[in-house]
Amino acid sequence: MAEPIEFYFDFASPYGYFASLQIDALAAKHGRTVTWRPVLLGAIFKVTGMKPNLQQPLRGEYLQHDATRIARLLRCPFTFPASTPVNPVAASRAYWWRFAEDPESAKAIARALYHAHWGEGRDIGDADTVAEIAGSTGLDPTAVSAGLQDQAVKDRLRAETDRAIERGVFGSPFVLVGDEPFWGWDRLDMVDRWLATGGW
Amino acid sequence: MAEPIEFYFDFASPYGYFASLQIDALAAKHGRTVTWRPVLLGAIFKVTGMKPNLQQPLRGEYLQHDATRIARLLRCPFTFPASTPVNPVAASRAYWWRFAEDPESAKAIARALYHAHWGEGRDIGDADTVAEIAGSTGLDPTAVSAGLQDQAVKDRLRAETDRAIERGVFGSPFVLVGDEPFWGWDRLDMVDRWLATGGW
Repeated sequence: MAEPIEFYFDFASPYGYFASLQIDALAAKHGRTVTWRPVLLGAIFKVTGMKPNLQQPLRGEYLQHDATRIARLLRCPFTFPASTPVNPVAASRAYWWRFAEDPESAKAIARALYHAHWGEGRDIGDADTVAEIAGSTGLDPTAVSAGLQDQAVKDRLRAETDRAIERGVFGSPFVLVGDEPFWGWDRLDMVDRWLATGGW
Repeated sequence: MAEPIEFYFDFASPYGYFASLQIDALAAKHGRTVTWRPVLLGAIFKVTGMKPNLQQPLRGEYLQHDATRIARLLRCPFTFPASTPVNPVAASRAYWWRFAEDPESAKAIARALYHAHWGEGRDIGDADTVAEIAGSTGLDPTAVSAGLQDQAVKDRLRAETDRAIERGVFGSPFVLVGDEPFWGWDRLDMVDRWLATGGW
């Protein structure tokens, strides 16, 4: 069986949210599965010298308009959060804490967090909120809170971010089909074509 | 009749080149025409604080890979130029010099310049080369050379770039359908849908 597609994203990224709604179904069409890998774009931007898109003059306004337009197109829940970019550390740690035990349950956490932030506009930047939202997927919030403080979890998130940089990941979403890189929600069509044809 | 679609681009942008191969046919499907508007992204980057994509770590390598992959997909001539980003000033002036007299002839110049640079990998950064390539579209190279030094032409390029900033243009290609902005070659599908539906 072919190896899973890798889906890198940052919880602060609206385009990562849109991709999260589509990537598993897209892969399944081609008999493939997806490993989700939340990372910290802030650390990656230190390498690339980029700034968060939404903080750039002209580009920030456009991206807010563009994201809202995509949400209307996809007919998905969307509320631009009052405070962006949100700090993705606690959310990412919740994912990697759960991933070690049950990757599918970790995906459920990620979906709930993305929905809360980009679907409903909630701030998911603090540990208590993350524990509550992760708890809503059927886990014990107290266990989540403890997991967020686990040194192994903190190390895993750092290692995953480092590994992303090594693999050339510099934005969100970023999909790897084997070693073939695709940056951006607007490359999902190309990922689809790549999976269908085996590349060109 | 509906107003022309506006197609902003920089000659140093490979994605602008790809869009230049498709935008007129795309618009014609919907009974629309296109006004091409080459501008200087370097001046725009001073406003946004961005750097040329190809000079960014990780991102630069990806973009070279991505552009080559798109060229294979479109089956269009493509040669990554030895020196990028090229200085687009002379090429842009040639366009605006001719535009004042005959916009369609100016488009032919732009196509020839884009083909030379991104299709064949030629350096189009100096005035003599630009005059020669523009001359190949049936114009007198000496007249082109004189036009490149025309103060009104220099002023027009500066004014067009300023106007682009006012309209929120921050990258290449950048398409405006009325006031609706679309950034990137990968938004052409969305431009197509927008023209077909009148927006959503």
